[in-house]
Amino acid sequence: MSQPVVAVVGATGAVGVEFLALLERRRFPLSALKLFASARSAGKTLAFEGRELVVEELTEESFEGVDIALFSAGGSISKHYGPIAARAGAVVVDNSSAFRMDPAVPLVVPEVNAEAIFRHRGIIANPNCSTILAVMVLWPIHRQNRVTRLIAATYQAASGGGAAAMAELEDSTRAHLDGRAYQPRVLPHPYAFNLFSHNAKLDVVSGYNEEEIKMVREIRKITGDEAIRISATCIRVPVLRAHAEALNIECERPIGPGEVRAILEAAPGVRLVDDRERNYFPMPRDASGIDDILVGRIRQDTSDPSGRSIALFLAGDQLLKGAALNAVQIAEYLMK
Amino acid sequence: MSQPVVAVVGATGAVGVEFLALLERRRFPLSALKLFASARSAGKTLAFEGRELVVEELTEESFEGVDIALFSAGGSISKHYGPIAARAGAVVVDNSSAFRMDPAVPLVVPEVNAEAIFRHRGIIANPNCSTILAVMVLWPIHRQNRVTRLIAATYQAASGGGAAAMAELEDSTRAHLDGRAYQPRVLPHPYAFNLFSHNAKLDVVSGYNEEEIKMVREIRKITGDEAIRISATCIRVPVLRAHAEALNIECERPIGPGEVRAILEAAPGVRLVDDRERNYFPMPRDASGIDDILVGRIRQDTSDPSGRSIALFLAGDQLLKGAALNAVQIAEYLMK
Repeated sequence: MSQPVVAVVGATGAVGVEFLALLERRRFPLSALKLFASARSAGKTLAFEGRELVVEELTEESFEGVDIALFSAGGSISKHYGPIAARAGAVVVDNSSAFRMDPAVPLVVPEVNAEAIFRHRGIIANPNCSTILAVMVLWPIHRQNRVTRLIAATYQAASGGGAAAMAELEDSTRAHLDGRAYQPRVLPHPYAFNLFSHNAKLDVVSGYNEEEIKMVREIRKITGDEAIRISATCIRVPVLRAHAEALNIECERPIGPGEVRAILEAAPGVRLVDDRERNYFPMPRDASGIDDILVGRIRQDTSDPSGRSIALFLAGDQLLKGAALNAVQIAEYLMK
Repeated sequence: MSQPVVAVVGATGAVGVEFLALLERRRFPLSALKLFASARSAGKTLAFEGRELVVEELTEESFEGVDIALFSAGGSISKHYGPIAARAGAVVVDNSSAFRMDPAVPLVVPEVNAEAIFRHRGIIANPNCSTILAVMVLWPIHRQNRVTRLIAATYQAASGGGAAAMAELEDSTRAHLDGRAYQPRVLPHPYAFNLFSHNAKLDVVSGYNEEEIKMVREIRKITGDEAIRISATCIRVPVLRAHAEALNIECERPIGPGEVRAILEAAPGVRLVDDRERNYFPMPRDASGIDDILVGRIRQDTSDPSGRSIALFLAGDQLLKGAALNAVQIAEYLMK
């Protein structure tokens, strides 16, 4: 595939905008870029390589001549238009949850399982943001010393709810500071100086929400290890665009923080921010706008006397490696 | 002790103000209230039961005739003036970390170990806020089925850093929204829409910070069980005055969410907010300004196949049960 025609579906969304920026910044060798969104956004223009591109309304005929379609317009759009795009000859890289657990669809973080990309049958799924961030750090450890258990607590940014959720965080915070009432429209709870259990649908039987269930299933599928035992608590915090995660990782054999530090120092896409002397560790503020996942607070998990557990803390841009960057990386592999 | 003279040391601080409000709201049977602070705050007035009380400068002579002294003015003030107050005949209830691990000083959460109050030798320590919140939920479970391991990830509010940290969160957030630069003065990192590893001093050998180490040591001292294995990750989030915590609790014997729910439903000072149908769980916004610790997201920890582990999420007012309320409750026991 040389100089493909690329389509972005959901071009005006928070992830869509990052797709455009990444294709430009990474000099993606495309011959043409088509932008699609809902009828409401059709006619808007977005800047790309110095030109203004017009956003078109997404229709069933949109994928004529498209080689790669980057989807980020929600699960129902993906479910309907993803197969249509694939049948029209495009390879779909889908950022929604629609196809992630489909056994016929590769679920890919290129640093972990790039080889799966080439088994696609027209659709490749981009994992959930919290999953991508965790697996970027888990995988290099797992390769050296099998991870047997993961306990995760997340600190998730507004961007996971899209541009409207980011605006709601800012607007409601300003209202709070001005002493004005604010009625939440996008998220189910007040967001200003507040946090809440992730608003994903909750399984009333197990008590886990879909964000947490995604982490369990997707980490197992990406690593190919169905035996990893995982429990996650996913929390939405009043941060704009980078997620953080506190992870307690149990391995098969004893492991120490020095070893983990050396492993992660050599891991692609991961940057150590682990300065105990200066008390300086990963923060959303530092992770925002950069490609790497920041990892630090690497220490022995003192609650496991067998010496097989490590505690650490990470932060990563939800819109970049957590979404658009990972998808663009997959598209880059398709060019190889 | 009937109708005691009560002194508040650090009366103008975030916790000090709550002391006054609680003494009034709970109709604490005092004969006189004395307010002390640094020279800088001396001369200010604070309202109490409809009168304006003048804040006096704290000196070594301040404790003449004082029966109960509630301290919340930082560790160094407590270290110096706590023993002076005790020698002058007052019982000190100290909210700092100065005496917490002193074997001669009871460390008390009344719902857990009220009996320890009466073993005091002039000083009683109020635990760290994160410790109090966790132990309020751990203890009722522990009594039924011994807790063997705790993994905690905290979401800590600005109030833990005092009134100045709360003001910095608001001021820096307003600056961020207005596009103005803001230089942090109280906390070491930008706080607006950001979070960071707790700013407590860090032990460079273990990699744990003092907030985390406090949780380990204080939970063991309060429960009297030195065998509980604990690992905590303490994170400061942009929330004003209520902490939240994600806890994974391992017990000696199998335990299920229904059992834990029944235990916590009956626990004093704890309120279940665990509505799976409505996806409604503890939030700092709901926990602020109330006495109870809110607990929910109670579910089996799916990473422990032995069925001995529970995951849950709690929120509690850092200034109330996390500090001032717990201390006032101790003082109330002294009256019995």
